[in-house]
Amino acid sequence: MFQLPVFQFFAVLYPIDWVVRFPSHHSRQTYLTPRQSISFTLLAVNAEIIAVGSELLTPFRADTNSLYLTDQLNQLGVEVVYKVVVGDDLRNLTAAAQHALFRSDIVIFSGGLGPTEDDLTREAVAGALGVGLRRDEKVLAAIEQRFQNRGWKMSANNAKQADVIEGATVLPNVNGTAPGQWLSGKFEGREHIVILLPGPPHELKGLFESECRERLREKLPEAHIATRVLKIAMLGESHVDARVSPIYKRYAEVQTTILAGAGEIQLHFKSRGQSKDEAQARVDEVADAVEEELDDAVYSRNGETLEQIVGYWLQMRNATVAVAESCTGGLLAERITSISGSSRYFLGGAVVYSNALKTELAGVPADMINRHGAVSREVAAALAEGIRYRCEATIGVGITGVAGPSGGSADKPVGLVFHALASDGGTEVIERNFPGDRRRIRTFASTLALDMIRKELM
Amino acid sequence: MFQLPVFQFFAVLYPIDWVVRFPSHHSRQTYLTPRQSISFTLLAVNAEIIAVGSELLTPFRADTNSLYLTDQLNQLGVEVVYKVVVGDDLRNLTAAAQHALFRSDIVIFSGGLGPTEDDLTREAVAGALGVGLRRDEKVLAAIEQRFQNRGWKMSANNAKQADVIEGATVLPNVNGTAPGQWLSGKFEGREHIVILLPGPPHELKGLFESECRERLREKLPEAHIATRVLKIAMLGESHVDARVSPIYKRYAEVQTTILAGAGEIQLHFKSRGQSKDEAQARVDEVADAVEEELDDAVYSRNGETLEQIVGYWLQMRNATVAVAESCTGGLLAERITSISGSSRYFLGGAVVYSNALKTELAGVPADMINRHGAVSREVAAALAEGIRYRCEATIGVGITGVAGPSGGSADKPVGLVFHALASDGGTEVIERNFPGDRRRIRTFASTLALDMIRKELM
Repeated sequence: MFQLPVFQFFAVLYPIDWVVRFPSHHSRQTYLTPRQSISFTLLAVNAEIIAVGSELLTPFRADTNSLYLTDQLNQLGVEVVYKVVVGDDLRNLTAAAQHALFRSDIVIFSGGLGPTEDDLTREAVAGALGVGLRRDEKVLAAIEQRFQNRGWKMSANNAKQADVIEGATVLPNVNGTAPGQWLSGKFEGREHIVILLPGPPHELKGLFESECRERLREKLPEAHIATRVLKIAMLGESHVDARVSPIYKRYAEVQTTILAGAGEIQLHFKSRGQSKDEAQARVDEVADAVEEELDDAVYSRNGETLEQIVGYWLQMRNATVAVAESCTGGLLAERITSISGSSRYFLGGAVVYSNALKTELAGVPADMINRHGAVSREVAAALAEGIRYRCEATIGVGITGVAGPSGGSADKPVGLVFHALASDGGTEVIERNFPGDRRRIRTFASTLALDMIRKELM
Repeated sequence: MFQLPVFQFFAVLYPIDWVVRFPSHHSRQTYLTPRQSISFTLLAVNAEIIAVGSELLTPFRADTNSLYLTDQLNQLGVEVVYKVVVGDDLRNLTAAAQHALFRSDIVIFSGGLGPTEDDLTREAVAGALGVGLRRDEKVLAAIEQRFQNRGWKMSANNAKQADVIEGATVLPNVNGTAPGQWLSGKFEGREHIVILLPGPPHELKGLFESECRERLREKLPEAHIATRVLKIAMLGESHVDARVSPIYKRYAEVQTTILAGAGEIQLHFKSRGQSKDEAQARVDEVADAVEEELDDAVYSRNGETLEQIVGYWLQMRNATVAVAESCTGGLLAERITSISGSSRYFLGGAVVYSNALKTELAGVPADMINRHGAVSREVAAALAEGIRYRCEATIGVGITGVAGPSGGSADKPVGLVFHALASDGGTEVIERNFPGDRRRIRTFASTLALDMIRKELM
């Protein structure tokens, strides 16, 4: 009847206020110290990622290709030990390539493979390796063909993209004109792998998957790595950690990483073993024990988002949902409908900022608002019940609160939010005081509402 | 009556699919080549930013402190030429510090100043400089006091945060326990400035502003830098560039950077001069000429967001708005209400996914939906008119379309969106076919709707 979407990792850029930390297996200093030891002891092969491009040295753009590459390398048993960003400058780029060759086993460059005089990665890597460039006629013909296919004339500078570092294997790029390049062999007496990839994320990803992953796997000592991720809604980081640290501390060979955002915690487990089965068994043991401890606070064990899980349960139960939001201003509806196919279970919603509209669109009695105020337990319940009735939905959700920074009072401070869920079984209201700025409070409130839907259906 | 919020730059993390490029002043190869030459010729002082922390070498987290620091340094006339990420590893961190000292004039470290054995920035920098660490009794007392004030007992390892590199100035950190450190002087015969800052963004920012900016200004050659940004809605990048490149190409001394996102283009202009006035005059000349060319497509000239500008105009005109959204699923309401104080002009909205709700909440005649389909010019207009009437708003906005990836047809493909605005003057409908995935199509559609409101009120 429906298919749960398969989770695809691709450079998930967590919001800026997410905290990542490695809890220590030894001490409990974690609250003052967001980072603790990561074990490199098992690791033999190190990588360095060099992002090339002057636009990455502006205030406007962070390198994110390295997140994808790091995930891919980690899965192959390789740890990234340095990341470097360098501009389109031959001297700086060559120096960066030289440093990298001296200190890292695998060096991956992203960007700087275009046709302009500022695309210098090929020249810099050849220079750092002390070899030359040759113009590859086959690559040149392929680039010319690509232009012809589109009815364009190739300008002369595009020929530059056919320059190949001596000894390099050309990696065909089906998504763009600049091919990648692969070199492996001894440099200064030590085995190296050097990979040049184009900067645009879809080209880089396509090329890595089609041309690099298997080549790397063949070259590397077999890595038996297993990972698991558990996602937890609406529990505090310290609360989660206090409950689960006695568990993960028993497994020194499993690396635990905690990611904490507004209303969401992720626990990532990773382990290496003599075999894939051994690594998987170890990771599963920790994850299963943690899941048992946290019980139904764990909403996902395969990487799905909360929005996906809520959609999954709504379809599973053949249920529909409608929402009436005040302080979240449409964020809850937006999150639910971010999932393709959500029209199967999301009927609609009302964003009711004014009191008149709380009455007009969601049927909240005007005298109730006068008596209790718009931000109240009663109005939240009436929003949920009203929108449920209005939309003929299985579940109605109502949210009212003070997102701030203005609009708070001693009685009803910024961060106070009432969340209500109405169903055949009655109406539940949850009152919470959320910390943070407007964006964070709205994120918290919509996450709690999504989690209420999930728990109702479980 | 109201105050337009002052724009505060702080590590604005642009979405992953934004493109940044430096258009060449010489050639027009820009469409195949996202980057072109950035002029370093005027620049004397270079900086390198080293982000410290093993969590920044996972797939989960990108360094974003460097975006803020880059903006601050650029304003002081300093260009960032390298960015490095290194883990909590003394050997790697010391090597990174050494490389940086050899190649960059200013080296800024973020992170690694906490109290654990993995916080090694102090040790590594001292090692790279060939000097020792001394425990500073005044700093230690301050840290102890901080714990006492909170009624906590300081554990022994916190004393480590009082270790100061020989010759360094301590930079008091009012937002955390770890102070920053400042060193300036000759190293290997060349002037250097080395700054150690804590990793948490609010601590880093607070310390940079209170302790570093003026110190840097005093040390650096006076920089006369002026910047301007123009923001443009709903014009294509190639279209904008074709119209404005003849203008900015006339000004070789103004660096132009183009940022392109879904439905939004930003043009950033920067120049140095003999005086601030000279630089400002030059930047203003380009920006004014570009603005004249693009006319009312330019929605912001002081950094404000489109949401802020729409709120500004609504208040200026004493107008209110209500929205009825189908394919954007609440995103338009969410964007309007992301601005604090938006309750003064945003009345509310309806998210009408089901056809029944389009009728029930926004008053769209059922037979109109049957006749023209839910995704149609007629239904968009009826949504705008219906929600305007229902909410008694000055302006009503309606959006209906196919956000995909499923739900498209030959007749009504994925990306087809109708946007309607109803006011006293009548109802306007704009039909567009947007490219990209679900998120991008929804972003495009909500941006166009915001821009319709702006233009209506201008």
